[in-house]
Amino acid sequence: MTAIGFDEPGGPEVLQPVTVPVPVPGPGEVLVKVAFAGVNRPDVVQRQGKYPPPPGASPLPGLEISGRVVALGEGVTKLEPEQKVCALVAGGGYAEYCIAKVGACLPVPESLAMEEAAALPETLFTVWHNVFERGWAREGETILIHGGTSGIGTMATMLCRQFGLTVIVTCGSPDKCARALEIGADHAIDYRTSDFVEEVARITHGRGVDLVLDMVAGDYVARNLKCLALDGRHVTIAVQGGMKADLNMAVVMTRRYTLTGSTLRPRTDSFKALLAQEIRANAWPLFEDGVLRPVMDTRFPLAEAAAAHARMEAGDHIGKIVLEI
Amino acid sequence: MTAIGFDEPGGPEVLQPVTVPVPVPGPGEVLVKVAFAGVNRPDVVQRQGKYPPPPGASPLPGLEISGRVVALGEGVTKLEPEQKVCALVAGGGYAEYCIAKVGACLPVPESLAMEEAAALPETLFTVWHNVFERGWAREGETILIHGGTSGIGTMATMLCRQFGLTVIVTCGSPDKCARALEIGADHAIDYRTSDFVEEVARITHGRGVDLVLDMVAGDYVARNLKCLALDGRHVTIAVQGGMKADLNMAVVMTRRYTLTGSTLRPRTDSFKALLAQEIRANAWPLFEDGVLRPVMDTRFPLAEAAAAHARMEAGDHIGKIVLEI
Repeated sequence: MTAIGFDEPGGPEVLQPVTVPVPVPGPGEVLVKVAFAGVNRPDVVQRQGKYPPPPGASPLPGLEISGRVVALGEGVTKLEPEQKVCALVAGGGYAEYCIAKVGACLPVPESLAMEEAAALPETLFTVWHNVFERGWAREGETILIHGGTSGIGTMATMLCRQFGLTVIVTCGSPDKCARALEIGADHAIDYRTSDFVEEVARITHGRGVDLVLDMVAGDYVARNLKCLALDGRHVTIAVQGGMKADLNMAVVMTRRYTLTGSTLRPRTDSFKALLAQEIRANAWPLFEDGVLRPVMDTRFPLAEAAAAHARMEAGDHIGKIVLEI
Repeated sequence: MTAIGFDEPGGPEVLQPVTVPVPVPGPGEVLVKVAFAGVNRPDVVQRQGKYPPPPGASPLPGLEISGRVVALGEGVTKLEPEQKVCALVAGGGYAEYCIAKVGACLPVPESLAMEEAAALPETLFTVWHNVFERGWAREGETILIHGGTSGIGTMATMLCRQFGLTVIVTCGSPDKCARALEIGADHAIDYRTSDFVEEVARITHGRGVDLVLDMVAGDYVARNLKCLALDGRHVTIAVQGGMKADLNMAVVMTRRYTLTGSTLRPRTDSFKALLAQEIRANAWPLFEDGVLRPVMDTRFPLAEAAAAHARMEAGDHIGKIVLEI
């Protein structure tokens, strides 16, 4: 089969079609004939050589897919051939065929196109765990989401609005701010022209937000903490602005802040299956009923994966980029 | 009545007997004739001018007392005159009489001397909330406790052992390490002669601890994180080593750490009452049954409060210092 791989880390151009054997599903796994594969920031960081695949995972990029089940591994009874699924996978999504764990598959509802289904798992699993489970987001609270028009940002905005939160996002241009408001943000701050700390204080009348979804880290951390209300939570899911943060522990203590974070890919299969169950029960009905659908940016043919990465790195996209297989 | 106060912040010698009116209990409060008052680190920091009383609290030091109820405020039915209580108070404990909120009082069981009862509330409330509620300590886990022979350290050690945790403490001398082991620690590290990061790695066979109870902050934070297992929690309850900490957010994220902390004094009365109920249900029986009792260091007469503070600041004490009224 054809897949996209790379020999050495580097720029988008290192991504090249490769011919590899069709993988064979093991116990608890299915083989999916991939229709679309979502492109995510971790794929870019992996290609740059800064995020190696966890032990046992495919070395090929691609963390989410949609497609049809074409073969069942030993003991699989919950899925059947020809069934349309989307799945969170541990790698290898940029390919004609991909292995998925049964527990990490969700059925594609009639309401969603296959390209939309491929755009859901990575952001939905990431947002659900980090915002609602790790970050304890709840109705009536206010959240600050950086990167408001990114795949993560748009998903977090939509879900938080559905679950009764007030959403403040930051974006890098007036156009992106306008799109973020259309997608559901209550307030959008252009971080290039105004100080988000001051803007959050103004919007919240000095109270601050209950939760920050942070994908920047670095010197944003100290600024994020200035945005937090008493008992606020700060959840880091990427470190695009650098790893090092200066923290005032007296502030963390007296304001009772909580800082945490996580990455999805290295989690165990049983964790991902549990998370999929939570999502299927609590969030999936919103997609099945057509209330929510992912914000789609561009689709590229599989062979043009390099162009898809270049678009993500340029930062002009709004919502999700997918590869059509 | 006689109380201990100070005009200007400074060394222990600024603590002087003062004559002030006996306070009058309001609704939901009782007046307690104080038998003993516990001495705590926050009293020292308050005397140094670095921890002002929260709005509405007594400006006099003293956060925990034991004594007898002598007058009831309006509407108080849960306590009666002559009843022996110990209480967490928002200030004013270094005095002949002190106001306590009904919800922050606990009955003194027969098994405890009044001086022991006075030594419990501040450390018990602090440890219970920060270790078990905020830090999610649970059976089978391992905790690293700094200041193993302090009031907080001894209480945390005893409670964690009772609830099935393995306890590693740090102390500043071989004698203190020996005492910490007698009190219940499984391992005691002399931080003056060995690197606690290396020792924790050795003791836990490289796995790390699930929880750090941190009262040092400053440059201990980065070292504490090196002691943490995957999914570990770091709870800060004091910043004796400085406020500024350098954090690697990529480590926080990929190791799924949680950093949090809190201070007790500014919490609402309703929070303290809820915490008192939790403690009465879950921890108090251990004291009623004589299974646990606080580790006592020295008692000083009220008039010698300055000497009590000097002893705490010298750091040679093991367990709790109390004032006898």
